[in-house]
Amino acid sequence: MITNSDTIVALSTPQGSGAIGVIRLSGPDAIAIANKAFAGKDLEKQASHTLHFGLIKDGESIIDEVVAGLFIAPKSYTKENVVELSCHGSQYIIQEIIRLLIKLGARAAKPGEFTLRAFLNGAFDLSQAEAVADLIASNSQASHDVAMQQMRGGFANELKQLRDELIHFASMIELELDFAEEDVEFANRDQLKQLILKINTVLNKLISSFELGNVLKNGVPVVIAGKPNVGKSTLLNALLNEERAIVSDIAGTTRDTIEDEMNIGGVAFRFIDTAGIRETADIIEAKGVERTLEKMKQARLIIYMVDGNEPIEAIEAQVKGLEGQEVPFVLLVNKVDTLAESTKFALSRFNVHYISAKQNIGIDDLKDILLDTVKFKNLDTNETLVTNIRHVEALKRTEAALSKVLDNLSSQVTSDFIAMDIKQALHYLGEITGEVTTDDLLENIFTKFCIGK
Amino acid sequence: MITNSDTIVALSTPQGSGAIGVIRLSGPDAIAIANKAFAGKDLEKQASHTLHFGLIKDGESIIDEVVAGLFIAPKSYTKENVVELSCHGSQYIIQEIIRLLIKLGARAAKPGEFTLRAFLNGAFDLSQAEAVADLIASNSQASHDVAMQQMRGGFANELKQLRDELIHFASMIELELDFAEEDVEFANRDQLKQLILKINTVLNKLISSFELGNVLKNGVPVVIAGKPNVGKSTLLNALLNEERAIVSDIAGTTRDTIEDEMNIGGVAFRFIDTAGIRETADIIEAKGVERTLEKMKQARLIIYMVDGNEPIEAIEAQVKGLEGQEVPFVLLVNKVDTLAESTKFALSRFNVHYISAKQNIGIDDLKDILLDTVKFKNLDTNETLVTNIRHVEALKRTEAALSKVLDNLSSQVTSDFIAMDIKQALHYLGEITGEVTTDDLLENIFTKFCIGK
Repeated sequence: MITNSDTIVALSTPQGSGAIGVIRLSGPDAIAIANKAFAGKDLEKQASHTLHFGLIKDGESIIDEVVAGLFIAPKSYTKENVVELSCHGSQYIIQEIIRLLIKLGARAAKPGEFTLRAFLNGAFDLSQAEAVADLIASNSQASHDVAMQQMRGGFANELKQLRDELIHFASMIELELDFAEEDVEFANRDQLKQLILKINTVLNKLISSFELGNVLKNGVPVVIAGKPNVGKSTLLNALLNEERAIVSDIAGTTRDTIEDEMNIGGVAFRFIDTAGIRETADIIEAKGVERTLEKMKQARLIIYMVDGNEPIEAIEAQVKGLEGQEVPFVLLVNKVDTLAESTKFALSRFNVHYISAKQNIGIDDLKDILLDTVKFKNLDTNETLVTNIRHVEALKRTEAALSKVLDNLSSQVTSDFIAMDIKQALHYLGEITGEVTTDDLLENIFTKFCIGK
Repeated sequence: MITNSDTIVALSTPQGSGAIGVIRLSGPDAIAIANKAFAGKDLEKQASHTLHFGLIKDGESIIDEVVAGLFIAPKSYTKENVVELSCHGSQYIIQEIIRLLIKLGARAAKPGEFTLRAFLNGAFDLSQAEAVADLIASNSQASHDVAMQQMRGGFANELKQLRDELIHFASMIELELDFAEEDVEFANRDQLKQLILKINTVLNKLISSFELGNVLKNGVPVVIAGKPNVGKSTLLNALLNEERAIVSDIAGTTRDTIEDEMNIGGVAFRFIDTAGIRETADIIEAKGVERTLEKMKQARLIIYMVDGNEPIEAIEAQVKGLEGQEVPFVLLVNKVDTLAESTKFALSRFNVHYISAKQNIGIDDLKDILLDTVKFKNLDTNETLVTNIRHVEALKRTEAALSKVLDNLSSQVTSDFIAMDIKQALHYLGEITGEVTTDDLLENIFTKFCIGK
């Protein structure tokens, strides 16, 4: 069982070289423990939400000059007593202060343990706690916005309300079971059916939002394909020239090294390299086809680059290969400024887009095409998006259980079967927001957090 | 001219993945600017040293939930109004908040600019400001302790007092110059001589402390030499096995990659590899000699490893090569448990130390030998150490100027020459603590700081 009767400590700011580091303590003895190390005012006598300058001393030896911030329970992130010590950003100092605080009674926090405590103490539900991790990992406006929406309530409130209604029916049916011999019906079957249909509509909307939510969170996969030397890097450079890629600067985003990531209009795009396929002379033919198609299936959009000066038949052959694809594609032609009008006319029967990387022609339109694939520009900021694979799995299981209830309602099976499936549905719904949790589930979620959060 | 009428902003915690980031604002409008971005209480109406939960919003769009810490001038690090915004540790969020604060009137801080302002506003003197950077970079108890001592006053107070006494004489001599025709002597020459001798004693002590101070700050250089395969890595591993090297974890400590660093008994040691020399069959002979000696000159200690089972004449030849060295050396023999007593007897005429890396014999004694080279264990914690090359240069220049004064006092030169040299000495002394500064000097010092401090 997870308990939180002890006091935990961790560095909450990143490792590495910086002006300051913040060491966080949370638990019943947070203030008392900090006070033992702190030379300055008596921290135990200070008000919540106050800052105090002082020294951290181990016996007579001064470890650092710090500022201590106090948050008295329940007015803190974890709803426990919290002390944040802002110290000089030296690894040695941080290590020594944490070592001292552990000596004085604190315990080293596990990854995500502060947020776990916040959840256990009712500061927010499980889906909100998970959004905290997503928010920290966010590296584009899109991934930020969906995480922020989820952290501030998101779909959890709606689900909770539907779940409460379903609980009502579940208890009514339980009651029927108690009076099984008397053949009474406390739970109105029509109302139950209506509720389940309503819930399933919501579930369907949420489940289908995952495709977009996931893409906004993790970056939009775009395949750039085409014959060798047709200008893939030129294209990437043209896009990069204007938008500095903040994504690539961020340590810890683990991506395939063969992908280029960049931030366009607030959305992270992952440009998937088909370099491995380029060796074949004609990638749409022969063995190349299969591997290209494999890559293409992962994409939201295929940018297929052709050389506008190739014979039109050759281009046609390549486009034929693409038309079997489910993923939408754009035929991209570089060096539009050097193309003959007749060539343009011949190409016009395809879904073609022209650019000139050199002359900066067509780049902005291409960005719009990219953004259109996720419709982020027109996204209603109140639209709820599911971004978490755990949530979508639970939603799908809920839906399956409720569909069984619907089937059973039509086929006149006994109340105990209906009750069982409703309970299943309640269980899965509860897993999303954390009304239903197991230690395994919590551990699974919070070990993915960083230490100090 | 350096002004601080504007409000500066920077991330004060390290870049990278972490639970939280702290963005610092300092300047007259710090609170007003933060308040414009902050949805929550009116920050301009709150007391100093208080913490406030709220949202950072750019128009209607929520960037993050933050805690704002207020420090009202002059009760802050910079003695200006300071706001510290503690936000989620996402690079995107940090970038967006800083961008917003700049839009609202702040300016991106330059490296060290917060500490520069603290210095300009009289929070501490220049040598203390420099110690802040040293403290952040400290990676061992020794480097921490010397930086902490300097930050908390160190030798600066003593120098300031001596400088004040010298200023008194300087003004007396200036007065004499005004009455030049009358041949009066306001400045007692004997007392001046006594003062200069006193100052020079202090200067000498400080200048000679630099050797140790520098070594404690930057790590003690130790050369491990010996014939190929004699067991250098075995030795390093034996030392490492017990002491986890915190030093090597720290990003940003720029060392030669051919050096191993580890923390032993609170002191950082840099073990200088002589790998480049190993290719020669016998490193003490032939061309190898020169390059080894070059390396050895940089060391505080040479650990010369020999194979105890070599003929004693071969060992003797190697030791002969070492005896010309100024740097002390220890002859280290591994696998003491396999050595014949006769061999030990033959070796006993040298300054020899035995270890067995496998059996963990002699490792602790070796650590004591290493620590003895810096006498850190017995170091008086109140002993003043100069660790900064800039300070030692200024001290040397002061001493040179004062020596000229002494010479002139004996050789009866006119007061104006004496006055000139005293002024020179005052200038150099003042450069240490910052009574005398130029923009160049300040820029030179503070650009070496990290941004956000």
